Amino acid sequence: MPGIKRLKLVSVAALSFNDARATVLRELGNTMPPPAIESIGFVSSAGRILAEDIFADRDYPPFHRSMRDGFAIRAIDLDLNLRIIGEVRAGQTFNGALQTGETVEIMTGAPMPEGADAVLMVERATRNPDGTVKAIRKNEPNLNVVPRGAEAREGAILLERGTRLDYSAIACLASVGRTSVAVFPQPKVAILATGDEIIEPHETPRPGQIRNSNAWSLAAQVARAGGIPVILPIARDNKDHTRALIEQGLQHDLLLLSGGVSAGRYDIVEPALADLGAEFFFDRVLIQPGQPVVFGRARNRFFFGLPGNPVSTMVTFEVFARAAIQILGGASDTELPLSLARLTVPFRHKPGLTRFLPATLSGGEITPVASKGSGDIAALARANAFLIADPAQAEYAAGDPISVLPK
Amino acid sequence: MPGIKRLKLVSVAALSFNDARATVLRELGNTMPPPAIESIGFVSSAGRILAEDIFADRDYPPFHRSMRDGFAIRAIDLDLNLRIIGEVRAGQTFNGALQTGETVEIMTGAPMPEGADAVLMVERATRNPDGTVKAIRKNEPNLNVVPRGAEAREGAILLERGTRLDYSAIACLASVGRTSVAVFPQPKVAILATGDEIIEPHETPRPGQIRNSNAWSLAAQVARAGGIPVILPIARDNKDHTRALIEQGLQHDLLLLSGGVSAGRYDIVEPALADLGAEFFFDRVLIQPGQPVVFGRARNRFFFGLPGNPVSTMVTFEVFARAAIQILGGASDTELPLSLARLTVPFRHKPGLTRFLPATLSGGEITPVASKGSGDIAALARANAFLIADPAQAEYAAGDPISVLPK
Repeated sequence: MPGIKRLKLVSVAALSFNDARATVLRELGNTMPPPAIESIGFVSSAGRILAEDIFADRDYPPFHRSMRDGFAIRAIDLDLNLRIIGEVRAGQTFNGALQTGETVEIMTGAPMPEGADAVLMVERATRNPDGTVKAIRKNEPNLNVVPRGAEAREGAILLERGTRLDYSAIACLASVGRTSVAVFPQPKVAILATGDEIIEPHETPRPGQIRNSNAWSLAAQVARAGGIPVILPIARDNKDHTRALIEQGLQHDLLLLSGGVSAGRYDIVEPALADLGAEFFFDRVLIQPGQPVVFGRARNRFFFGLPGNPVSTMVTFEVFARAAIQILGGASDTELPLSLARLTVPFRHKPGLTRFLPATLSGGEITPVASKGSGDIAALARANAFLIADPAQAEYAAGDPISVLPK
Repeated sequence: MPGIKRLKLVSVAALSFNDARATVLRELGNTMPPPAIESIGFVSSAGRILAEDIFADRDYPPFHRSMRDGFAIRAIDLDLNLRIIGEVRAGQTFNGALQTGETVEIMTGAPMPEGADAVLMVERATRNPDGTVKAIRKNEPNLNVVPRGAEAREGAILLERGTRLDYSAIACLASVGRTSVAVFPQPKVAILATGDEIIEPHETPRPGQIRNSNAWSLAAQVARAGGIPVILPIARDNKDHTRALIEQGLQHDLLLLSGGVSAGRYDIVEPALADLGAEFFFDRVLIQPGQPVVFGRARNRFFFGLPGNPVSTMVTFEVFARAAIQILGGASDTELPLSLARLTVPFRHKPGLTRFLPATLSGGEITPVASKGSGDIAALARANAFLIADPAQAEYAAGDPISVLPK
């Protein structure tokens, strides 16, 4: 067939979804973590990857801390009428030590006075006419004290290198006074859309043309994954032009191509990559959408060839390329945050492929979004999750649990 | 009890978690959506809330589009030997119309030639010695064509006002050429940490003092929810100082207070709010952590009083305040993205409260993170999800499904 060639250059068997993901994690995991680090203020560190371990600078809590408003007492004094000898508020320390029969008024968060080992909650205490206080019931109190060092001992690791800094990690940095922190640089990710039919969003399409949406959705996805997107000009269906842009893309930390990876005569992406000495780890995965997705390495840089239908591009980015960006950025957790939900309707599919379908997740239940296929961007935009149909299970009844990936 | 007063001013019954969330959504939902809109470039619109509907500017696809590389044919010609009369690539249009016995080579994404109504995939065609082509098997082809307008008709709504713009919505904007777009302004959210024991993160704590982490984790949470955080100075345990800062906070779109909402003598936040004429919708919810969470309105602004333990502050923000910011920002979807996961270990809790526990979610399974309670920031930082224990279910076996909220 001289007219139409199958230009797929790799003859590896199609991989299952799990094997393909394992391949990405293995190949990227074998690259060295970036040795460079940079220092930034903790206030603007959300989403960055920690490049150092963070330790407790003192015991946490730094003192025996009252969990309640009430009366600091000796637990063995519970049945006595207790004389109030003072008070201690959060931020203060009580001078002196508690003796038998004595109590100190104490507020939530305040350090326990010396000699006290329990807090009688204010709601469970009563005041006698002579001004002393007493537990309303026997069996009070619970201790209501967090002992010094119970949350962390001085020197303990609180956050590990490779942690993605979210709001809770930022709270952790603030609590130990780490106002500046070492993080890994964000990987620079080149984005190369391909195809003669594509024009830029501000242009008016002629018949047969469509606007470039893939470069812009990929840029948003790269940024969310922690990378810095670098959008290259559109590669036209011409091997020299495509090759030159691929070479430019391979100067960044990762290259994402969209389109040009199916089987036709003018798919010139894989041959252009092959010319550059590319090694292909896979070029077909048993998924839908996105079956012809390509993963490889050239000039010591990894690349993905993402199928050009918009929904295919977005899905294959999420399930393959996102993990690569996380690893290149030094993140230790690259796992897909899969959970489950119960189908609100029966669902069936032809087994053999792992299917990712736009869906709406609500209250532990999931409903597929009506979609016209991998060109139906609006259907994906109406979804807040993907349901993931198992290649080994053809039928699901309403109420059955099914795998869910947040969008 | 003149010495220690219960200063809680509201005598409403404690609300269940679901009732408290419904209260927030109802009260906020009754506010008018912000009438102001602003126009921004679509490239930087990720996370913003759309203030207009977005329509299809033409049919999508704009032409009958080939889904495959192969041969455009008349489906009724399937058993014939077909003469190739030309080719059409993506971005081109074929001049002329197909007659019986003719075919046009066609590439994925290209417009169908006039007269053709199906595509014979290249992998399922064979070429005869005379240069004609023929289907390898009977029962070919599937049509392999997306009809013009199948994904959307010109004028159809693709994205609705109130949509949060994510990567797929950005793809949608690009595809219809909406390079600038109307969005709602981001609500400004004042953050007011309270307490005499609190110092700033760059300061060195004396005995009894701890660093302010809540203002900084809240700022990260507000930004993630689509708001603009405005951190106020720490309010000291002094009614005039606190009142002045609350008044300042109530000049923003929403006020978040942390700390100062428990039952003790020096909790002066609620009295200060009451002085300002506050209306309280709830001041206790049957959850853990975060039971003393307060929600109200003063001077025509909503406020939350979030309990001061760091984990309580973070959790109550996520499950109550986040939805308020979304509504104030014009978002139509405020639902918690709850899903399910199977417990890897048995779990029990004292029923009566809805419990949110730091947990690690992986492959549809969830494991509670060992935690020392609501001061244990590092435990929460190690989690990627909350498991949500039902107030009516005391015991869960390993393998049981349980509710999950992504962190």
